[in-house]
Amino acid sequence: MERTAFDLTIIGSGPGGYIAAIRASQLGRKVALIEAENLGGICLNWGCIPTKALLRSAEIYDHIQHASDYGFKVEKTTINFSKIIERSRAVAAQLSKGVESLMKKNKVTVFRGRGSLAGAEDGVRKVLVQKSDGKSETLLSKTVILATGARARFLPNLKANEYIWTYREAMMPQELPKTLLVIGSGAIGVEFASFYCSLGVQVTIVELMDRILPVEDEEISKLARKALEKRGIKIMTEVTLDSLEKKGKGLVASFKQENKGHTVEFDRAILAVGIDANIENLGLENTKIKIEKGRVVTNEWCQTHEPGVYAIGDMTDGPWLAHKASHEGVLAVEHCSGNKKVHALRKTLIPGCTYSTPQVASLGLTEKQALDQGYEIKVGRFPFMANGKAIALGEPEGLVKTIFDKKTGELLGAHMIGTEVTELIQGFAIAKTAELTEEELMQTVFPHPTLSEMMHESVLSAYGRTLNF
Amino acid sequence: MERTAFDLTIIGSGPGGYIAAIRASQLGRKVALIEAENLGGICLNWGCIPTKALLRSAEIYDHIQHASDYGFKVEKTTINFSKIIERSRAVAAQLSKGVESLMKKNKVTVFRGRGSLAGAEDGVRKVLVQKSDGKSETLLSKTVILATGARARFLPNLKANEYIWTYREAMMPQELPKTLLVIGSGAIGVEFASFYCSLGVQVTIVELMDRILPVEDEEISKLARKALEKRGIKIMTEVTLDSLEKKGKGLVASFKQENKGHTVEFDRAILAVGIDANIENLGLENTKIKIEKGRVVTNEWCQTHEPGVYAIGDMTDGPWLAHKASHEGVLAVEHCSGNKKVHALRKTLIPGCTYSTPQVASLGLTEKQALDQGYEIKVGRFPFMANGKAIALGEPEGLVKTIFDKKTGELLGAHMIGTEVTELIQGFAIAKTAELTEEELMQTVFPHPTLSEMMHESVLSAYGRTLNF
Repeated sequence: MERTAFDLTIIGSGPGGYIAAIRASQLGRKVALIEAENLGGICLNWGCIPTKALLRSAEIYDHIQHASDYGFKVEKTTINFSKIIERSRAVAAQLSKGVESLMKKNKVTVFRGRGSLAGAEDGVRKVLVQKSDGKSETLLSKTVILATGARARFLPNLKANEYIWTYREAMMPQELPKTLLVIGSGAIGVEFASFYCSLGVQVTIVELMDRILPVEDEEISKLARKALEKRGIKIMTEVTLDSLEKKGKGLVASFKQENKGHTVEFDRAILAVGIDANIENLGLENTKIKIEKGRVVTNEWCQTHEPGVYAIGDMTDGPWLAHKASHEGVLAVEHCSGNKKVHALRKTLIPGCTYSTPQVASLGLTEKQALDQGYEIKVGRFPFMANGKAIALGEPEGLVKTIFDKKTGELLGAHMIGTEVTELIQGFAIAKTAELTEEELMQTVFPHPTLSEMMHESVLSAYGRTLNF
Repeated sequence: MERTAFDLTIIGSGPGGYIAAIRASQLGRKVALIEAENLGGICLNWGCIPTKALLRSAEIYDHIQHASDYGFKVEKTTINFSKIIERSRAVAAQLSKGVESLMKKNKVTVFRGRGSLAGAEDGVRKVLVQKSDGKSETLLSKTVILATGARARFLPNLKANEYIWTYREAMMPQELPKTLLVIGSGAIGVEFASFYCSLGVQVTIVELMDRILPVEDEEISKLARKALEKRGIKIMTEVTLDSLEKKGKGLVASFKQENKGHTVEFDRAILAVGIDANIENLGLENTKIKIEKGRVVTNEWCQTHEPGVYAIGDMTDGPWLAHKASHEGVLAVEHCSGNKKVHALRKTLIPGCTYSTPQVASLGLTEKQALDQGYEIKVGRFPFMANGKAIALGEPEGLVKTIFDKKTGELLGAHMIGTEVTELIQGFAIAKTAELTEEELMQTVFPHPTLSEMMHESVLSAYGRTLNF
């Protein structure tokens, strides 16, 4: 069997893996990247990117449906659903190809196949590659980064059938269902609910917890629920799903809410109850790597308990977000390269986004978390309906909420709902990363007329200085 | 004649004036606000806000025109132009009303009429109000803020006629022209060109300088020109306009480009060659206030040369932007209230935005300005076509350019063109205001997939660390 030496071997080519490969290559290291499927991982091929393409189609359709508000009469619109799906697949393919050329450009050696840890000799790690062509090969390198991501979680009490979709099937069905059950109301569930709702599907969301988007600030959760319900989505919380059986060309769902049983028929269902880390068949058994709650345990530098082995992204502790993975990819590479200027992972600095209509974006502590942690806080709020740009856009629904430490003026959290907030949150991410206080944010000049002025006003509001409300 | 005493008298209720009134009221001061027309000034009534409503209609129409790219077949679309105008007027009216209630809420006394300086006695300023009802009144206050704004400039060699529009007429014509000449390619000219082009009007822009959007970075100017030309707008630079005469129900324009004469007919023309400050009939003659190039001279605290009199916004030196005016409004109030924590005006921290398709947004020094000022620089660039969200949106044209001081890592300038950049620039405004270096920006986690990731990549690019390109 061939044995090739590298400085760094990366298993998995999602945003964490391929970005780590690029950064290591920039630092002059010889890098191997192992991937069994398309380059780019779930994010590029089955996640972030193709769903954004779908949601863009939904947005365009929403605009057409509301054209008369803006001064246009549209006679008749037909949905070409397969075209919507094709476009989304084409976008994903283009980006996956992009990663391929990035690997070439950065002289990263890509192995098509499955990688697993195969011990170490004299501080040199061995990685076995079971290649797609049937051959296998051993790679030797001082450092290994595990970045194999995760997959959709299946509920243990459900029997799989072709009418129960995970995000993969939900992303490319043959035709539009008339009715759809979305199980779980995290970002993925809510985004699909929003997409299918825009295209005229009757959508029901069921959620185990007492609110949708349960990781978000409670006030934002409430506003999201109200907005989605206004759009016609039925939302049921504190629901336990008992069964989801095939019936004819659809499904019959049995679930309980407050001990009351419900039996409802749907054409299709989307399972969006979370993800399971891909930790199998990686040779973890013969290492010191620790697994907790199904995830690889890492420290703030992404190191596992096995010397020379890092783990990043969705296979480790959350938040399970592509930009956390790629940030960790860079972090792991900088750390094993001895760069001392880099900060360790700070989870409160990682923004989270949901690209539904309305969008949700947040950073840092929720109001409840801040209070639970004993902070005395100042809370600022500014509503979209008082913002000139939002009114001019015809998008007057939403809120920008900010939470400050009363003592120090530190921005503890920022929580937003409304049009384009996923593009706004970066300003607060920059501010929080650089530990700005309220004073510096208040003295920043935000351009007029923009939605971003609400960020300013929200900060002013926390200090009793709101201008336009 | 009545004489009423206030702590602060403000002449003009545009963003500078009304925001100053609110801030002063928050600080417990008794405030008079004098306005001859609608509250909110040009910005709310005839500028920023109603044009954004028009441009939103144009965006919706663009989406309808490109619906098939996104999977929708639209049979036939009719433009209801008067509805577009009505919507824009309604948005403006709503916001002007909003300012009215803000004044009530903040207990600001509003005088409808024209204000002028009428001397001072024992350090108390007198302001004469010629009220709209024919009466007049004298207000006494320690401090006066002049905020009377500006108006469209008319070219001295042109005779006015009803087919030559300024922004006011361009914002509410009876019907769509077939052909339109836009004279001047600053933000206002380019925004109107973009709006009318979207609605199918044949638009020609003529510009005296050698490039459009002449205050922007040269590279951005070029990209803007290319993008607008691609949309079908004819652009001619280094053009001097000789005459613009009525002919039938339209105009005939005579202009020169490189000594070659042109005579072209248009249905209508928009004059967008700049603005003239409203400095007449304010009683400035009998004060120490200095006028230079038609503008009131002020220092970094917005003080004029006359004791107790501040001037803010478009009547002073540029940039002539609403958010500069409102920032100055707050600044002037804080300064005359003795607040020492506030920074003086720093013009490099004021972002500029053009809301055309594509949008343009910028901050700080252009590349040329940075070099002219003797900086050794590092320049970062990241193109929209390498950004996943831009591709998913179907908006792959644009650039994020950043300029750093090689020695210190200071962000000297940021220049962007492409979809939604007017909402992105705030992140760089926050960064530059807080004097962040490249290191802090590079370690910030930007959410994926967003356009804002290009800001990160552009910074990385300046330091040879681009990831996705």
